[in-house]
Amino acid sequence: MADPLRLAIAGLGTVGTGVVRLLQENAAMLAERAGRSLEIVAVSARDRMVERGVDLSRFAWEDDMTAMAARGDVDVVVELVGGADGPALTLARNAIAHGKALVTANKAMIAHHGLELAQAAETAGTALKFEAAVAGGIPVVKGLREGAAANRIETVYGVLNGTANYILSTMEASGADFASTLGEAQRLGYAEADPTFDIEGIDAAHKLAILASIAFGSRLDFASVACEGISRVRAADIRQADTLGYVVRLVASAEIDHAGEGPALLQQVRPCLVPKSHPLAHVTGATNAVVAQGNFVGRLLFQGAGAGDGPTASAVVADLIDIARGDIGTPFSVPAAALVPLPAADAGHHTGQTYLRFSVTDRPGVLAEITAAMRDADVSIESLIQQGRANDGGEVLVAMVTHDGPQSCIAHALELLAGSASLTAPPLVMQIIED
Amino acid sequence: MADPLRLAIAGLGTVGTGVVRLLQENAAMLAERAGRSLEIVAVSARDRMVERGVDLSRFAWEDDMTAMAARGDVDVVVELVGGADGPALTLARNAIAHGKALVTANKAMIAHHGLELAQAAETAGTALKFEAAVAGGIPVVKGLREGAAANRIETVYGVLNGTANYILSTMEASGADFASTLGEAQRLGYAEADPTFDIEGIDAAHKLAILASIAFGSRLDFASVACEGISRVRAADIRQADTLGYVVRLVASAEIDHAGEGPALLQQVRPCLVPKSHPLAHVTGATNAVVAQGNFVGRLLFQGAGAGDGPTASAVVADLIDIARGDIGTPFSVPAAALVPLPAADAGHHTGQTYLRFSVTDRPGVLAEITAAMRDADVSIESLIQQGRANDGGEVLVAMVTHDGPQSCIAHALELLAGSASLTAPPLVMQIIED
Repeated sequence: MADPLRLAIAGLGTVGTGVVRLLQENAAMLAERAGRSLEIVAVSARDRMVERGVDLSRFAWEDDMTAMAARGDVDVVVELVGGADGPALTLARNAIAHGKALVTANKAMIAHHGLELAQAAETAGTALKFEAAVAGGIPVVKGLREGAAANRIETVYGVLNGTANYILSTMEASGADFASTLGEAQRLGYAEADPTFDIEGIDAAHKLAILASIAFGSRLDFASVACEGISRVRAADIRQADTLGYVVRLVASAEIDHAGEGPALLQQVRPCLVPKSHPLAHVTGATNAVVAQGNFVGRLLFQGAGAGDGPTASAVVADLIDIARGDIGTPFSVPAAALVPLPAADAGHHTGQTYLRFSVTDRPGVLAEITAAMRDADVSIESLIQQGRANDGGEVLVAMVTHDGPQSCIAHALELLAGSASLTAPPLVMQIIED
Repeated sequence: MADPLRLAIAGLGTVGTGVVRLLQENAAMLAERAGRSLEIVAVSARDRMVERGVDLSRFAWEDDMTAMAARGDVDVVVELVGGADGPALTLARNAIAHGKALVTANKAMIAHHGLELAQAAETAGTALKFEAAVAGGIPVVKGLREGAAANRIETVYGVLNGTANYILSTMEASGADFASTLGEAQRLGYAEADPTFDIEGIDAAHKLAILASIAFGSRLDFASVACEGISRVRAADIRQADTLGYVVRLVASAEIDHAGEGPALLQQVRPCLVPKSHPLAHVTGATNAVVAQGNFVGRLLFQGAGAGDGPTASAVVADLIDIARGDIGTPFSVPAAALVPLPAADAGHHTGQTYLRFSVTDRPGVLAEITAAMRDADVSIESLIQQGRANDGGEVLVAMVTHDGPQSCIAHALELLAGSASLTAPPLVMQIIED
């Protein structure tokens, strides 16, 4: 058997501890599959004294992560510190500069600095791998970079945030509203005390930007992801969706827009209506799923646990096995220098059906005002439901589904209605995913 | 850019033609992703004169596949001839013997001769790849061999035959019986004139044996797959299943049985009841899906088109890209010599809930006879449904679902009832998949 692959692990939170545990529990099997043993040499974390439930006594402890990245007895640095910049980025740069392979679960860092790090790794002739950064344990980076590599990918989309999906599918099951469901999720530990990254779609946007780059061979562009969270989705929207044959999901999607002068990249994270017959409609709880549509393979679906120490450790160690087996190819599907910089697409080009929900005052003429705006903006209505009576606030909900049409027309209709005294709250717009 | 990867393609049916078309349509993108161009040098098929809709004029034509495998200007032989033995196997052996990499979509050949071919490829230091042999375009061989490689896989199962699934999901939607649905599928081209391989589970068994070997690191053992088809499933069974909250699927499953002296391999293909909340319940039409349960990653699902020229070509070319990128690792998850020969498990050890359907004569005492046999065999009944009245043949259906218990008890109960004058047909037994 070949020499061991020698590892340094930075960050010993739940994921880091999970990686240590996996490497210990499955050691013999891993050595057989990788063709060499995977051996932890050194570890580093902020606080040495925390009890972590794993035996770290045989590993060197490094207080200084920079020193760890320079150790002569280390082949791979595993970065599990987190954060887009700061110590994680410094460690990543240092590790690559010293010719170490880098494996990371850090979606924010890759979304922001993946291009720079990939170029550095390619120049150094070493590996940069980040399977765990997208969709936890699901091997979707590999699935797109290798499994679907023969295809021109036309679109990639999915449910990429377990917390948001837990909240939406719980609202669906219970009929409860957003605020109380979030509160319950926080009590149960499914949502953070500050849930912004999850419920506002930023975490999903990080993952989406990475997937888009791999799928399309386009340059990473996190800044252009249009991002809208789930906090404005009401229990009533979920009920209406159900009546119409849909569920609500926070969908992250990327596609190439050919409607303009040249190809452009459309990246969006926002709550959408998903037909009940679509695979994403059955993705409940903290599960993640990714759909890729290729020009030869058709629709592929990858589904599994999107977070948690076990699944994330599984993805980290899959990367380590790849490296041990000698796979140190380009981090993205093509060399970093060949990634094409694409301008951000005009979201108005996107066509499809749309769900619109208006909160309106309970008085005559409101429906006429809304439907006139739709007509004037060239939005064709397929169905419209007005709730029977006003709620306690004297507010009535009007929900409608449009025929296929461009988002630009929807935006125009909303402009026409902006400032209307009939509206008691900004309208909620949800695109409908095609089956 | 590195030298081109030079290909010889044997077999120009729908899949072979699809591979040629994919290599032509996506050529520039493939070269960028693979780091070198993928160039067809030679092709071979039975009949040179068939019009195939692709331009073959720039490739050398070889009437003799054996000569093609020996060509000095070929790096990879792509075997798309089909058949477990005969010309395909001769070609595969020859190609590897000449140091060529071999890529194949031939599930029967790999299921029967994969071990021999893997050993030969490893000895020759060349690649043997067969992503397209299992579940068409779904990258599940890679998903298990690499993506889930960090996990001890506890069980792998799925819907692996599109024809059988098309028939079952059509029966589900239409309420029609098996014979008429099969006839319609044959007229539409979804089922072969001789559908035996598909509807009796043999095709699924080929794929299962390959998946099990990769998942468990066990030696390929197609012969020990217990195989039962779908031809005895009636419209009434599907209705009963629906009432009870299930759908019927032809499920191929493999697991390690630890109930005996040492580990044993249980491989089964048979119609099962799948809870409607389970991902496999939503796999309809010709779609395939594979579930793998790992000790760290939990449940992973891979889903997509299980057949067809486009999806199969996608998988074949993914293998070619891997080879072009330099990945020529062991064909299975571990070297062929390290694959563990496991004895076939006693299917009676398998525990779970079971659906039993009896066709009985419409006379007093029949229910008592059946329930007494269940009691005497220690089978505990959770629910029982007896159809209200006899059908035209004077036959009544009695369906029941058991509590959790070993299959050995079910088998014992059926022995006690064997030869009973009350039964008008052999009982149908379907295991229930756990949610």
